[in-house]
Amino acid sequence: MSNETTADLFNLRSHNPSYFSVKDSCPYDGNLIDFCIPVNLHFPPAEMLNRIRDSLSEILRYYPDYADVHANHIAGLTGLNPETIVPSNGSTEIITKLCQQSNGPIVTSVPTFSRWTDLPTELHIPLCVIQRSRARQFRLHVEEIVDHCRRVNARTLVISNPNNPTGAWFTLDQIQELAYELNDLESIIIDESFLDFADLKSAAKFAAGTNNMIVVKSMGKSLGWHGVRLGYAATNKERATKLRKELPLWNINGLAAFILKTVLCYQNEYFESFAKVATDRIYMMTQLSTVEGLTLFASKANFLFVELPTGCSGRQLRDRLLRNYGLLIRECSNKIGSSEQYLRLAVQRKDAVDSLVRALKAELTSTAIESKAVSAA
Amino acid sequence: MSNETTADLFNLRSHNPSYFSVKDSCPYDGNLIDFCIPVNLHFPPAEMLNRIRDSLSEILRYYPDYADVHANHIAGLTGLNPETIVPSNGSTEIITKLCQQSNGPIVTSVPTFSRWTDLPTELHIPLCVIQRSRARQFRLHVEEIVDHCRRVNARTLVISNPNNPTGAWFTLDQIQELAYELNDLESIIIDESFLDFADLKSAAKFAAGTNNMIVVKSMGKSLGWHGVRLGYAATNKERATKLRKELPLWNINGLAAFILKTVLCYQNEYFESFAKVATDRIYMMTQLSTVEGLTLFASKANFLFVELPTGCSGRQLRDRLLRNYGLLIRECSNKIGSSEQYLRLAVQRKDAVDSLVRALKAELTSTAIESKAVSAA
Repeated sequence: MSNETTADLFNLRSHNPSYFSVKDSCPYDGNLIDFCIPVNLHFPPAEMLNRIRDSLSEILRYYPDYADVHANHIAGLTGLNPETIVPSNGSTEIITKLCQQSNGPIVTSVPTFSRWTDLPTELHIPLCVIQRSRARQFRLHVEEIVDHCRRVNARTLVISNPNNPTGAWFTLDQIQELAYELNDLESIIIDESFLDFADLKSAAKFAAGTNNMIVVKSMGKSLGWHGVRLGYAATNKERATKLRKELPLWNINGLAAFILKTVLCYQNEYFESFAKVATDRIYMMTQLSTVEGLTLFASKANFLFVELPTGCSGRQLRDRLLRNYGLLIRECSNKIGSSEQYLRLAVQRKDAVDSLVRALKAELTSTAIESKAVSAA
Repeated sequence: MSNETTADLFNLRSHNPSYFSVKDSCPYDGNLIDFCIPVNLHFPPAEMLNRIRDSLSEILRYYPDYADVHANHIAGLTGLNPETIVPSNGSTEIITKLCQQSNGPIVTSVPTFSRWTDLPTELHIPLCVIQRSRARQFRLHVEEIVDHCRRVNARTLVISNPNNPTGAWFTLDQIQELAYELNDLESIIIDESFLDFADLKSAAKFAAGTNNMIVVKSMGKSLGWHGVRLGYAATNKERATKLRKELPLWNINGLAAFILKTVLCYQNEYFESFAKVATDRIYMMTQLSTVEGLTLFASKANFLFVELPTGCSGRQLRDRLLRNYGLLIRECSNKIGSSEQYLRLAVQRKDAVDSLVRALKAELTSTAIESKAVSAA
């Protein structure tokens, strides 16, 4: 793959290229190790996969169940009231619908999951962003968010907790403070897609008692399967009923429905897997901190936000790691409020981390030198 | 299961209950035979299922591809220009979006797939229906549709071809005549979800050259897998581009994406399976015609529309066939423009048809007698 082809592959959108498109066009000999897609590598257990394999034909043959059945299963896993749950075809289906319904202005912080910035732009809805500051480890204060919302007369606020890609977070107390201060907004949307990996409390139960808070949740990250397309929103009963009606019938595919039902039998493994990811995160943080020139930031998610040395091109580093080591990393130049000086590295198992650290130690020096040579030329 | 419970299960919605909800609550000893869900029983081949089983873990791990990749695969299967294709999470995702966007009045014929009548009602969009007439085997003339559209000042026309549940059809010439006569409508929507089972030409290529025609297509029926959630729309390039942007990213789940890519390797089996269904349909039609009192209508789909003798309760027959024989049938009392005197019976394999015919011969007599006794009481 030429340098240009690699660049073309990665620069199509504000999101990653799909793993399959990279795999299909990559001439690297050997297995790719993926640090792009932050997915739970300690779930599902092999036994659960076998159960799915055995039932596959019947799972796929018939129309899946209706939303109330899925909501009951999600309630069984989360303890939420099923009437407050809106099952969705990945969190993106809900995110798309909420953005399409917002009158704006929408306030969110950047960098963030690009759907939250791309959709308002595509829909011509005023978007006002709060830049997260490196000096404060990308964390935000409740007051600055409230002030910002007041200043631009926001109707919708979107907060990712923990934030993607920085890993910065809010406590439930802070989220409740936001709800109290901003109870006149149309929507306060809390995207908790990575919350399972953190020692933080969900706002989903609290949201059901508010007039304007909606918690949005991808389950793909937690289940270890992005491709399955499963997520939900949690909000007050009236809004949940309305949202359900606006989504297509049978929006949850048969496999996702089966997984959702089956995961109830593997709850111990499910919740224990998050602790294992946290252990991996600590190992990865420790090992990456031995790479000279990298700056690491505190993260409660299953990814780390990493700053490269000044003058080091994240794009070039990405292309070298893919071509020479089969390591897929994500640099953040296509995220508003970030740049190619930053990487979001999905938490991986120890041996994968060791490979990455070795490659970074070797490549960072040469890449930095090359970049400096280019900028001096 | 008591009579009331069976009735509760079936009378929740204008669609069927899910197969899984019936199976989970049915005390019938033995395997259920399903005549409700019209699905291709001659596809997929076992080898394809094994390929999916083997790749399942990787299929599910990562985000699926973007719409352009799926559109290329659909183009490979259909010969359509990929730029005219909008991949969707089942045809229902597109149907929901098209109804939400319509200003109305919407004209459609009844009986039909209930999403086409329920959605306009839920959305408070004026809906004007053309009643298909038994005397004409439920077929319609182009002129009466055009006249009806003019009379109510329709903005959207929806035609299912072949029609669900009657199996009645239009030729491509007739569809083109409709397009010519109604080229000032916002949308002429042709639902071709069952067209693969008919010796009819698709209007999808033609639609791409019109200003207002959209062909909507479920692929679940053809693939033999409703649970996979895969469909598409075909329309002119501009509208296709716009529609794609309005649907959520990653709306096609990883398994559906893999199946779509893989079916290209099984095209012979895919297209041959439709001919096998047609053979089964002829057998089923012949056998059912030996059941005294049933009236059958010509069908080009993978289901037959069947009229019960006067006074025979379709609901009671359904409940008896389920309880006593494990046979799941669909009566049409919850379809606008139909009644419980009509059944839509999915085309099944020979042995299943033989079981149904035996059961119908036994039960129809006793049911009819009981009904007459009740009405006389």
